[in-house]
Amino acid sequence: MPGVPAVSFDTEPSRYRHLRLETEGEIAWIVLAVDEAAGLRPGYELKLNSYDLGVDIELADAVQRLRFEHPQVRAVIITGGLDKVFCAGANIRMLAQSEHWWKVNFCKFTNETRAAIEDATGHSGQTYLAAVNGTAAGGGYELALACDEIILVDDGSTAVSMPEVPLLAVLPGTGGLTRLVDKRGVRKDLADVVATRSEGVRGRTAQAWRLVDRVAPPSRFTDTVREAALAAAARSQRLPGGPGIQLPPLDRQVSDTMISYPNVTADIDRAAGLVTITVRGPADEAPPDANGMHSLGAAFWPLAMCRELDDLILWLRTNEVELGTWAIRTSGDADAVLRHERLVEAAAGEDWLASEIRHFLKRTLKRLDVTSRSLIALIEPGSCFAGPLLELALACDRQYMLDGVPEDSGDATAPAAIVLTAGNFGAYPMANGLSRLATRCYGEPGRLAKLEQETGRPIEAAEALKLGLVTFAPDDLDWDDEVRIALEERASLSPDALTGMEANLRFPGPETMETKIFARLTAWQNWIFTRPNAAGPDGALRRYGTGQRAVFDRKRA
Amino acid sequence: MPGVPAVSFDTEPSRYRHLRLETEGEIAWIVLAVDEAAGLRPGYELKLNSYDLGVDIELADAVQRLRFEHPQVRAVIITGGLDKVFCAGANIRMLAQSEHWWKVNFCKFTNETRAAIEDATGHSGQTYLAAVNGTAAGGGYELALACDEIILVDDGSTAVSMPEVPLLAVLPGTGGLTRLVDKRGVRKDLADVVATRSEGVRGRTAQAWRLVDRVAPPSRFTDTVREAALAAAARSQRLPGGPGIQLPPLDRQVSDTMISYPNVTADIDRAAGLVTITVRGPADEAPPDANGMHSLGAAFWPLAMCRELDDLILWLRTNEVELGTWAIRTSGDADAVLRHERLVEAAAGEDWLASEIRHFLKRTLKRLDVTSRSLIALIEPGSCFAGPLLELALACDRQYMLDGVPEDSGDATAPAAIVLTAGNFGAYPMANGLSRLATRCYGEPGRLAKLEQETGRPIEAAEALKLGLVTFAPDDLDWDDEVRIALEERASLSPDALTGMEANLRFPGPETMETKIFARLTAWQNWIFTRPNAAGPDGALRRYGTGQRAVFDRKRA
Repeated sequence: MPGVPAVSFDTEPSRYRHLRLETEGEIAWIVLAVDEAAGLRPGYELKLNSYDLGVDIELADAVQRLRFEHPQVRAVIITGGLDKVFCAGANIRMLAQSEHWWKVNFCKFTNETRAAIEDATGHSGQTYLAAVNGTAAGGGYELALACDEIILVDDGSTAVSMPEVPLLAVLPGTGGLTRLVDKRGVRKDLADVVATRSEGVRGRTAQAWRLVDRVAPPSRFTDTVREAALAAAARSQRLPGGPGIQLPPLDRQVSDTMISYPNVTADIDRAAGLVTITVRGPADEAPPDANGMHSLGAAFWPLAMCRELDDLILWLRTNEVELGTWAIRTSGDADAVLRHERLVEAAAGEDWLASEIRHFLKRTLKRLDVTSRSLIALIEPGSCFAGPLLELALACDRQYMLDGVPEDSGDATAPAAIVLTAGNFGAYPMANGLSRLATRCYGEPGRLAKLEQETGRPIEAAEALKLGLVTFAPDDLDWDDEVRIALEERASLSPDALTGMEANLRFPGPETMETKIFARLTAWQNWIFTRPNAAGPDGALRRYGTGQRAVFDRKRA
Repeated sequence: MPGVPAVSFDTEPSRYRHLRLETEGEIAWIVLAVDEAAGLRPGYELKLNSYDLGVDIELADAVQRLRFEHPQVRAVIITGGLDKVFCAGANIRMLAQSEHWWKVNFCKFTNETRAAIEDATGHSGQTYLAAVNGTAAGGGYELALACDEIILVDDGSTAVSMPEVPLLAVLPGTGGLTRLVDKRGVRKDLADVVATRSEGVRGRTAQAWRLVDRVAPPSRFTDTVREAALAAAARSQRLPGGPGIQLPPLDRQVSDTMISYPNVTADIDRAAGLVTITVRGPADEAPPDANGMHSLGAAFWPLAMCRELDDLILWLRTNEVELGTWAIRTSGDADAVLRHERLVEAAAGEDWLASEIRHFLKRTLKRLDVTSRSLIALIEPGSCFAGPLLELALACDRQYMLDGVPEDSGDATAPAAIVLTAGNFGAYPMANGLSRLATRCYGEPGRLAKLEQETGRPIEAAEALKLGLVTFAPDDLDWDDEVRIALEERASLSPDALTGMEANLRFPGPETMETKIFARLTAWQNWIFTRPNAAGPDGALRRYGTGQRAVFDRKRA
């Protein structure tokens, strides 16, 4: 927002304040040693490896760089770098002093980072292990839960705990409750005990209750962790493809009315509460083969575009909370987009970089899916909604496609067209496990089967409408008015109601642990964050650490 | 709460103020003709067939009586009895003036009633049809969505609509958003349009968008509805078993410290925020066969007990919102419980009454699952947690089972024991589609398979603990302290945090439309209900009908 210093998501290991990224052959360590004095905002100290958004930005950066810059790594150990402390979770004073929207946005990003850890384990052959060498409380234990294996030091005192409900009157909302029962299969009555017992659970009991996978005495702890990491590395299916590529700083220009990158631009209309995002197709021809892709590295268009889009999503979510509608456009040559996609898809099964690029785009699109903004695709002549870029339109709440060409555009202008590719049917699954097309056709599987026959050719507006690929297809006479009215209407509606509506409509069909975390656990946490029992002046979140007990309204809702 | 007149759920067709229940052979009509002046609480008029809790109590009663009192009915038509009005949804002034907990509880009950309509269609051979003969707005259209078939009058003006987001800044939260995309397969972008367009969708467009199943002009409407109902009745698999049984008024005694029925008692400890519910096993022997069950009718213990328990759940939820913990006990002869269960189970595949009793218990247990109170099972000597009554314990957040017998209880006292039956493995599925045992063993399917070998015999505390059937098994020395501490601890925690925690822990594993409605849609709605944009003094819910526009905080969270 104007006047408030913007939060940047830029960082790199040499600038980390809160963690160390160390690699040794196939193993990497992320060592949490949070700088108490280096909170992102004033007003709190990051004691006991507690975290704020700034800490999580570094963690997300490390997870991302490991995939692109350190392809030799096959197992990643997260551990604490302070004495007797693994991680104490989200900083409580930070939460207590934060605006509601900040808390919600912070939790969303931390949830995405933990999902990225699981994505690395599941799809990148980089298996995460939590070496819990000291207190793992709340979000600290939830961070461990995002790892594939949890090893707890059995020193008679170190516990894993979820003290949120008893101490703070909020939930273990960074996936904690869901991962206990759905990922780790902790029995639900034991999960109830864990989530209400502030002191947590230690040693063998923690193991018996499935809260951790192994315990080891202090004398054996380091060796046990290393053995587990080497075993995980040995199981890894990480693809070959040569050395890592560097992820240089992004070239981002910001003014009051525009945020621009080489391949992505955001035009801001504050009065309308609107940002128009334009993603540009490739300026250069696709390289001939995977070697050429490796040579280009971060300059390879799919990766460069995706990094910029990812950064823009995070920037807008955090710094522009009053821009409630994102109109999404593309411009460029659809064929060039498709040639890049073909190169990535052809190599994705055998080359780590191609695979990483595909999964990165998948994760970026998932960020869009859970973004609490109205997303409207505008598909116009000159656009290139083809293959991977068509996913941007499909991620939107509505798709408007101009039928025909504007009268004054001259004979050379071709009408807008979209192109389906095989990638649209599975390369970029949503959190519900379905492709965006399958989700769109959830009620009409026959329609999905029919669409599979329509790949590889331009589909113009009238046909796209008939195929159910777009919501509306106004012609040139109606386009401006219809789009304007839709955007104005959106801007007139309650931001909260839209957030709730979109969260419910975007994920028909099956549910997964991920959708449960983002849609169910998060919704309950958001509710609790608004309730006086937690966030009011006498609530537990505000009174924590003051020596005064919280005062609760005892009415159950 | 003391001092406030309690809401009773007692009603019967002759006392209905808001609807008529009419039957004609295999067809029944529920005709909504809401009495504007007969709101349950003061301060609003129930115009245009809008509803409050009082209206929904009658609707729930009609749905229930059709299953037990009118077994010949195979299709039920819900229609509007006012000119040009089907139903305008939940009364807005009622919502605007209601406390948060009232809104949440009201929505839960209305959701349960709509789920009961779908349960009748799915499991009772009583298929519901909505004859939308006039305005179906918001909750009115959501009521239609709970029906198996929606027939819309095509008169050029009648629309189905979801004006909640644009007019009230809340969600179509009575299952509307979920049923659009998950039940009816409405494309999600079209659902977005429907849920933001206050005037709704008419005629052929409503049909093309899958919002309704058929349209008919006014001249053909009645015939079309009747034909559809007769066709549904012809498809019905309703079981035989003779004439209906009567559901007489419940014998409920209420004092400040106790609510008691013949088979169920609730002891209230207001200071502790605790109610202790005791369900008693059968006083009489089970009848020899299904004929005997029919003769007993509503006096047959499984049905009598279930009606009382169902009523008590609703009573406590609505009238005792500060009693945050429900301790659940049983007393009686486990063998007598099992003999009744065997009779019901043996007949459930071929006799409508046995089938209805089983499904009714299933629905009552589901009410427990979504009850926003902490549920603690206390399993002591003299209890009868066997088969169907064991489900009560399994629905709880924790199970405490006394190991051994109290020292002063004499030689005749047998230790507490529980009994598994085949019914525990599937007769009473939860909303997630799994049995409570399967849900409990979600992370350890091998444990579930092992439990199937353990049916039909008493299992005492130590073994129950080992089998994972109970959480804790203190002996007589520890029992009182351990239970007391658990109950006191529960009472000390934030009611909101407990509600959110329990809602997330009670449903591991698969999700269904029903869990999505109760856990996801409801959580978002609850959040929105707390936000000033809806419920604040300048919010849309409060300003609706005043001529003043709502003022929104535009920050997106």
